[in-house]
Amino acid sequence: MTLLDRPLADLLSAFSDPTPTPGGGSASALAAALGLSLVAMVAQMGRTRAGSDQDRAALDHAKAALLPLRNHVSALVEDDAKAYDAVVAAYRLPKATDEEKAARKVAVQSALRGAAEVPLDVMRACQAGLTAAIDVARHGNPSASSDVGVALELLSAGLRGAALNVHANLGSIDERGWVDGVRSEVEKLEAAAPLLAADARSALGT
Amino acid sequence: MTLLDRPLADLLSAFSDPTPTPGGGSASALAAALGLSLVAMVAQMGRTRAGSDQDRAALDHAKAALLPLRNHVSALVEDDAKAYDAVVAAYRLPKATDEEKAARKVAVQSALRGAAEVPLDVMRACQAGLTAAIDVARHGNPSASSDVGVALELLSAGLRGAALNVHANLGSIDERGWVDGVRSEVEKLEAAAPLLAADARSALGT
Repeated sequence: MTLLDRPLADLLSAFSDPTPTPGGGSASALAAALGLSLVAMVAQMGRTRAGSDQDRAALDHAKAALLPLRNHVSALVEDDAKAYDAVVAAYRLPKATDEEKAARKVAVQSALRGAAEVPLDVMRACQAGLTAAIDVARHGNPSASSDVGVALELLSAGLRGAALNVHANLGSIDERGWVDGVRSEVEKLEAAAPLLAADARSALGT
Repeated sequence: MTLLDRPLADLLSAFSDPTPTPGGGSASALAAALGLSLVAMVAQMGRTRAGSDQDRAALDHAKAALLPLRNHVSALVEDDAKAYDAVVAAYRLPKATDEEKAARKVAVQSALRGAAEVPLDVMRACQAGLTAAIDVARHGNPSASSDVGVALELLSAGLRGAALNVHANLGSIDERGWVDGVRSEVEKLEAAAPLLAADARSALGT
């Protein structure tokens, strides 16, 4: 049974159990999925800011981006746990001979990259969600502004939480060029997020 | 079927559907429950910071507070949706006669207070979670520091998101003394949260 199939009460127990997965990476993906869902909810409401065709078109456009993004990031809740399990499995490979040592090293490096890429993808989805939230704040139902406000908190928390999980894996990856590229992207995503959230809050009028 | 019984994928669809509930209030409670679960996970790990009896005792103490708190706030995911539904139902009461108007007014005021009290309770649980996270950061497994870091993001987001939902209800409540008391508590909770999170981050060494 995947994490997406588990009832919420069971899922929360899985997060509190002292087993390696699911952990903070999956929780960050879940926060992102929840934030994207709330923005999609407001985009789909019948009531818009001014009731204009322009409002409706902007919200329909946002919805078309948000729902596939939400489904993608929902799958990352499970993918993050699998990626971490793969790191643990790679570290457990035999290392008695030189051949085994070399094969283990390749497997560990590959698994660590996978475990860094999943939260990096969560960060990108949070940025896309924050960008869409600006339009939804501008054109959406004003009485749902607290829902958009909660979504901004969740997308920002998901992005920063995912950044912690990217960094937790980068430290053990050997390929400097790849690591530097990821670190630079993470920095840009972290720097942009509060500006996007501020734009959305300003569009909400809060 | 309550929200706690729903599989995660269905739950996320419920959050994105353009129906009044579940909305931002339930999402804030869910973020809080997720954050509390991650702190409880680290508190229950076999490995502690220094492997001392003092570490174990502090983590056991934190765990004993965290798991009941997580269960309490999980129930608030459902309670928030019910409280909002009660507000909608009260506004729909008949208002043809003076008696009906008076009865409707009492019902609306009572429902609005209920809808403000649930997110206020979420805020208190987030504060308790942030406080427990300081001890878990100080005494817990250093290799789980990103899990504690994600929990700090989720508890902070849950607290601020819940504050938006308290305020959304306060504006229509007539009893000034009650409103002022709640507003003052919300301000204190919002002011304390970043300080508690900073203490926890400092204990993590991040």
